[in-house]
Amino acid sequence: MPRQRATLVGGTSKGVVLDLIRAQGPISRVALSEATGLTQATMSTVVRQLLDDGLVVETGRGESTGGKPPVMLDVNPSSRFAVGVQFGIESLTYVVINLAGDIVGRTRTGGSGRAAPRAMVDRIASEIEQTLAGLGIDKSSVVGVGVVAPGPIDPQRGLILHSPHLAAWRDVPVREMLAEAIDLPVLLDNDATAAALGDFWSGRLDDAVAHATIYMGTGIGSGVLIDGIVFRGASSNAGELGQIVVTGRDGTWTTLEEVADPGAVVRRAHELGHADRLKLAGHDEFEDFRTIAMAAVRGDDEAAALIEESAELLANGVLTMANLFDLDSVSLAGPAFTVAGPTYARAIAHRLDTDFFVRSQHSVRVRLSTDASDAAAVGGAALVMQTELSPRVMGLNTPSGVH
Amino acid sequence: MPRQRATLVGGTSKGVVLDLIRAQGPISRVALSEATGLTQATMSTVVRQLLDDGLVVETGRGESTGGKPPVMLDVNPSSRFAVGVQFGIESLTYVVINLAGDIVGRTRTGGSGRAAPRAMVDRIASEIEQTLAGLGIDKSSVVGVGVVAPGPIDPQRGLILHSPHLAAWRDVPVREMLAEAIDLPVLLDNDATAAALGDFWSGRLDDAVAHATIYMGTGIGSGVLIDGIVFRGASSNAGELGQIVVTGRDGTWTTLEEVADPGAVVRRAHELGHADRLKLAGHDEFEDFRTIAMAAVRGDDEAAALIEESAELLANGVLTMANLFDLDSVSLAGPAFTVAGPTYARAIAHRLDTDFFVRSQHSVRVRLSTDASDAAAVGGAALVMQTELSPRVMGLNTPSGVH
Repeated sequence: MPRQRATLVGGTSKGVVLDLIRAQGPISRVALSEATGLTQATMSTVVRQLLDDGLVVETGRGESTGGKPPVMLDVNPSSRFAVGVQFGIESLTYVVINLAGDIVGRTRTGGSGRAAPRAMVDRIASEIEQTLAGLGIDKSSVVGVGVVAPGPIDPQRGLILHSPHLAAWRDVPVREMLAEAIDLPVLLDNDATAAALGDFWSGRLDDAVAHATIYMGTGIGSGVLIDGIVFRGASSNAGELGQIVVTGRDGTWTTLEEVADPGAVVRRAHELGHADRLKLAGHDEFEDFRTIAMAAVRGDDEAAALIEESAELLANGVLTMANLFDLDSVSLAGPAFTVAGPTYARAIAHRLDTDFFVRSQHSVRVRLSTDASDAAAVGGAALVMQTELSPRVMGLNTPSGVH
Repeated sequence: MPRQRATLVGGTSKGVVLDLIRAQGPISRVALSEATGLTQATMSTVVRQLLDDGLVVETGRGESTGGKPPVMLDVNPSSRFAVGVQFGIESLTYVVINLAGDIVGRTRTGGSGRAAPRAMVDRIASEIEQTLAGLGIDKSSVVGVGVVAPGPIDPQRGLILHSPHLAAWRDVPVREMLAEAIDLPVLLDNDATAAALGDFWSGRLDDAVAHATIYMGTGIGSGVLIDGIVFRGASSNAGELGQIVVTGRDGTWTTLEEVADPGAVVRRAHELGHADRLKLAGHDEFEDFRTIAMAAVRGDDEAAALIEESAELLANGVLTMANLFDLDSVSLAGPAFTVAGPTYARAIAHRLDTDFFVRSQHSVRVRLSTDASDAAAVGGAALVMQTELSPRVMGLNTPSGVH
């Protein structure tokens, strides 16, 4: 019988100590020794390095616990920055966070549309440079760029694969191209995975054991966290909620995405003859979806019925997922939830309350992300900050792509 | 920003060393020190204890690597035994394994049917005693009993919850009742989870990163292993494949189990008027399912169509699951696959080959369990052996039930 293989989630002492100061600072060297199990001598050396790197500062003396009051340490928020880029056809979102995890800048520009990858990568590099210049941040203090995109992706090789929504990007080595154009470390990950990490870093998931962030942009995905650690599966492409098999309106098998995503809502509006009355422009499905969602919020019955139908179908998918992962927490993030998020959240919460298989054991908490449209970009920035400064295995098995 | 919490999979030195000897023995003390990082002095002490407990024996001298040939150690297979009980309405399976993981005995008796829990627990205790007596195994060398049952269960409290198939057992403290009746440690776990562990212990999953054992008895479940470690979710009830939401024949929402499990196949045979011709007895759905499966294997077209339909529906569910967990390995276990397993395996493999979302990245290997009908019982025995002798966190988060 083979031995049970152990998955150890480790990290360098320096990274672990930095994380601890970030989470619990101001904190003394003694408290750090106690929390990590490192000797006080080792801790002194590690802290010395962090002070030398400018990542940490001494902030004065703390409470005495008998002897001399200890010197307290905290992170130096403006010593390092990370950029998150949420890559989408409908828009690009740039977020800059500092070492403390605070968002210090955010910009949104037009989506990739049908632009060629080469031109698009150059545009992203230049928009990052402009964003940093506008914030007065020197590139030497930027640890890297975390690009997040709809799956499937190959984070190791830095490729966007055959995303149904990004056909021109198939097998394009985005990470390498952008790293060359911007001359910074670049990391690529799934937008839904990043959004889940963004939610976790916001600190609101502390009570969750098994959490999924449902992510809806042009398509539908999800990111799963177990005890705050990304669940990645065999190739970092876990959580493909949009790929759940469902029966379509015509009785044939299709995917949840095909019947419930923003494009499906717009197509349904056309089928039912509501397109003209709802003033759907017809050139951008995602814009038309927002128009329908706005009309629903304003009380238009037919628009509300369209959103409600999509919400019910998504709720079925989330119920399936909750039963498979035994979730105790769900949040909703992504640009599609900025207007109609509450309707979707209500439908999902109701379905889980009524039908979650082990509801006698525990409930599944449903929330909207604090910042539904930016969670993925924030997660991308957080991911690169952590990878560069506190390297450790981020996933339950396969590490995220590193350059 | 909160610190990423780390999940450490640990164990006692004694347990780790025992596992290592079991997996790699015959092995020398020096090789054990090298493999574990423990000093040779510590290793001597640990090995001494294992020898004193009779768990390990010295088997002679190995190859010299320069100096004196080292004394080799191996487990003493007959020093300890564990019992696995697969609890079902259709049958009870008892398996006894020795310390080396070999199956030394196996019995099958009638299922629980509608018997009252109290009487049933007494029957199980007495059947365990008889099985052990028949094998000439003294109870003092039995480390415990691992009972596995269809979910949902509460392994911590040792309860079978509201399984649709075991209504009389709702909230019955099986573990405590049986532990008292048999006077041995008892552990309760999900049958599908145990089957996955049984598959893993058979050594055939060594190449799998993200594996699911699809388990079909009276109902449908699954057990997920990530790097050989059970994925448990928030309350040890992950993997409820049978609870996937699907559209029923009448257009309303139902569960995969309702349309695809053995009972559903039998109901469909009645609906289509094939019951008489196929000689379905009508008093035991599971028996009738086996009758249909046998007829299908013999070439009866209508029976084959019934099985094929169930297989296609299950294949959809497995595809959904593969896309959500990013699986690279699937196996089929459980009494429902003993006859028609190949048909189900073919349908699932075909569907994954054609439609798995990240098939450009990797394939999903599909196999039948070596011993489809006993995998869950073997897993139950393995689980209790490991919990008693090599205690460690078995799940990715929540530990399995201990007494």
